[in-house]
Amino acid sequence: MNKYSRKINFSAGPCTLSTEVLESIRDNLLNYNNNGLSVMEMSHRSKPYLQIHKNTIELIKELMGLNDDWTVLLLQGGASLQFDLIPLNFLNGKKGAYVVTGQFSKKAYLAAEYVYGKDKVYKCSDTTDSEYRTVEDPTKWKIDEENTAYIHLTTNNTVYGLKLPKKLPKFNIPIIADMSSNILSEEYDYNQFDMIYAGAQKNLGCAGLTVVAIKNSFLKKAKTIDIPKMLQYKVHADADSEYNTPPSFSIYVAYENLKWVKKQGGVKEFEKRNYKKSDLLYNYIDNSSFYNNYTDKEFRSIMNVIFFTNSKELDTKFAKEAEENNILSIKGYKSLGGLRASIYNGMSFEEVEELIKFMKKFESENK
Amino acid sequence: MNKYSRKINFSAGPCTLSTEVLESIRDNLLNYNNNGLSVMEMSHRSKPYLQIHKNTIELIKELMGLNDDWTVLLLQGGASLQFDLIPLNFLNGKKGAYVVTGQFSKKAYLAAEYVYGKDKVYKCSDTTDSEYRTVEDPTKWKIDEENTAYIHLTTNNTVYGLKLPKKLPKFNIPIIADMSSNILSEEYDYNQFDMIYAGAQKNLGCAGLTVVAIKNSFLKKAKTIDIPKMLQYKVHADADSEYNTPPSFSIYVAYENLKWVKKQGGVKEFEKRNYKKSDLLYNYIDNSSFYNNYTDKEFRSIMNVIFFTNSKELDTKFAKEAEENNILSIKGYKSLGGLRASIYNGMSFEEVEELIKFMKKFESENK
Repeated sequence: MNKYSRKINFSAGPCTLSTEVLESIRDNLLNYNNNGLSVMEMSHRSKPYLQIHKNTIELIKELMGLNDDWTVLLLQGGASLQFDLIPLNFLNGKKGAYVVTGQFSKKAYLAAEYVYGKDKVYKCSDTTDSEYRTVEDPTKWKIDEENTAYIHLTTNNTVYGLKLPKKLPKFNIPIIADMSSNILSEEYDYNQFDMIYAGAQKNLGCAGLTVVAIKNSFLKKAKTIDIPKMLQYKVHADADSEYNTPPSFSIYVAYENLKWVKKQGGVKEFEKRNYKKSDLLYNYIDNSSFYNNYTDKEFRSIMNVIFFTNSKELDTKFAKEAEENNILSIKGYKSLGGLRASIYNGMSFEEVEELIKFMKKFESENK
Repeated sequence: MNKYSRKINFSAGPCTLSTEVLESIRDNLLNYNNNGLSVMEMSHRSKPYLQIHKNTIELIKELMGLNDDWTVLLLQGGASLQFDLIPLNFLNGKKGAYVVTGQFSKKAYLAAEYVYGKDKVYKCSDTTDSEYRTVEDPTKWKIDEENTAYIHLTTNNTVYGLKLPKKLPKFNIPIIADMSSNILSEEYDYNQFDMIYAGAQKNLGCAGLTVVAIKNSFLKKAKTIDIPKMLQYKVHADADSEYNTPPSFSIYVAYENLKWVKKQGGVKEFEKRNYKKSDLLYNYIDNSSFYNNYTDKEFRSIMNVIFFTNSKELDTKFAKEAEENNILSIKGYKSLGGLRASIYNGMSFEEVEELIKFMKKFESENK
């Protein structure tokens, strides 16, 4: 607890943000930088807003190490809308290959299959049988190189606490990566992808903004006829994400958060912090006879740490008592059960230590 | 000017909000109602967030006088995405009739025409030739009753400062109303419509949220196959607007704003205030030989007051000097030119008086 009586919030997204970021938003809420109005009141065509819009895009590119071969879009609708826009814009008569490694990668597959059918969409890798505890070696993914428009994958599995290998083999097909739950969490070779997207409500900012980065060479392949303009990437790119009113306050929240990420030392620094936090948790779990994690150690997420006691009842009791001890949203995803500590960039090492303290106490009381 | 050095902001949207609303958002920014976290950090499945979500929907229904025959959705993408979703969901082999009375009603028409072509979409009234200074008597709209799925209209024309008659004749076809720029501005018989939608960034809250109200009998006609699920109204309705992560902070801003609207006396009170503000401006303009408004008096908007000096140069000078005098975003829309004072619910009578003071000074210096 601290001067604002803030609790420790392990929500998988929307998630905890740094107190410093929130303080800056608060202090500027009625009058942003002496412009005489709140960011949420600014015309989206006004100079101070356009500066925020531009700076946000530049910071995203800088922190991700994207050069001018890339276009960054600030959109609405969440990753779920991207699940629909991707086949709509990029299938172009070919097929979409989906790497199914968890809940959201499966949702992306199902969204495309729902509209285009199994002729046009296939799973090039599917580890459902492992209960998403491991991933398949990417060199073994079954890809129909000739007829495939793109490979879609999810770099981090929020629900099952699993991540893909950082470095993928070279495919001759564009890769589209949903990085909603681990963007900016560690250094990454983003250039192995042709498109990256992320709902902002984890490492970028708050809900209501979806960041999409597309390589210009890939953007050229996006549909420019037959589908509604609002669903065309090209339309948003040509309008600098101002084809219609953008979600300006959510963009501003991302801006404040990204400035903070940079000030703290950028992605390199957060990589250190995130491994330190997740190592602390995994080491404690691995050395405990009370808590378990079943994920293949090689592919454990550094953002979402899943753990189980030895019974559903105890898991429920844990979540309940945690809440009574000011530890929020530690319950696992409904389809998986168990417990989950989401430890995104906004979560401090000290907060993870507090969780472990509570885990120890709970263990001693319930062994 | 006031204790926060806030300027007077006539932006057409996003627009000025009440200082009281912003203070409440600010005061809860790090710890909402002693829940120990910011609303923007809350899991969208957590109890405190779900309460905000539910309360917002209830307040919208209460303030609009909608009973349980209606479903209210909290969506993303702005009115522009609705322009696409409406024909997608409701054409069903029939035609869409569009009442073209200004910039955005024309955009809605063009969005539908772009995808479905002139066979499926037609203008049942088009007052482009009047330069949108008046509207056609609704009894004269040319509607092909047999083959038309819906009539689409825009109740207030933000760009040209014009509004439709409040009471429309009875049609045997569902009416869909874009009320983005005058929802909650005055008492309205919302039940003459089958669907109402509005971008939140004017009278509801801030950008990033789109409110859609649909009569349940009409919702039943919405498409449930062939189009992506994220684009189906029915999917969002069935999930209580939690099919994916909603734009939770923009919803919260709307909630704070709607609570304030209710506390001030509801729509009845704002009707009084809005006529008082717009009468003050129109009367001043009408009695001035320096400023002009060309809109048919019967259909003048109470939200967007357009005025012109007698030259483009003076209009530009006015906007520039207004800004130097802490009066922001008074410039007219780019396609129309001139000047525009958007005086939504968040704008006080005293601020309009300040504008008139400046108008008088400018007139005396430039006559």
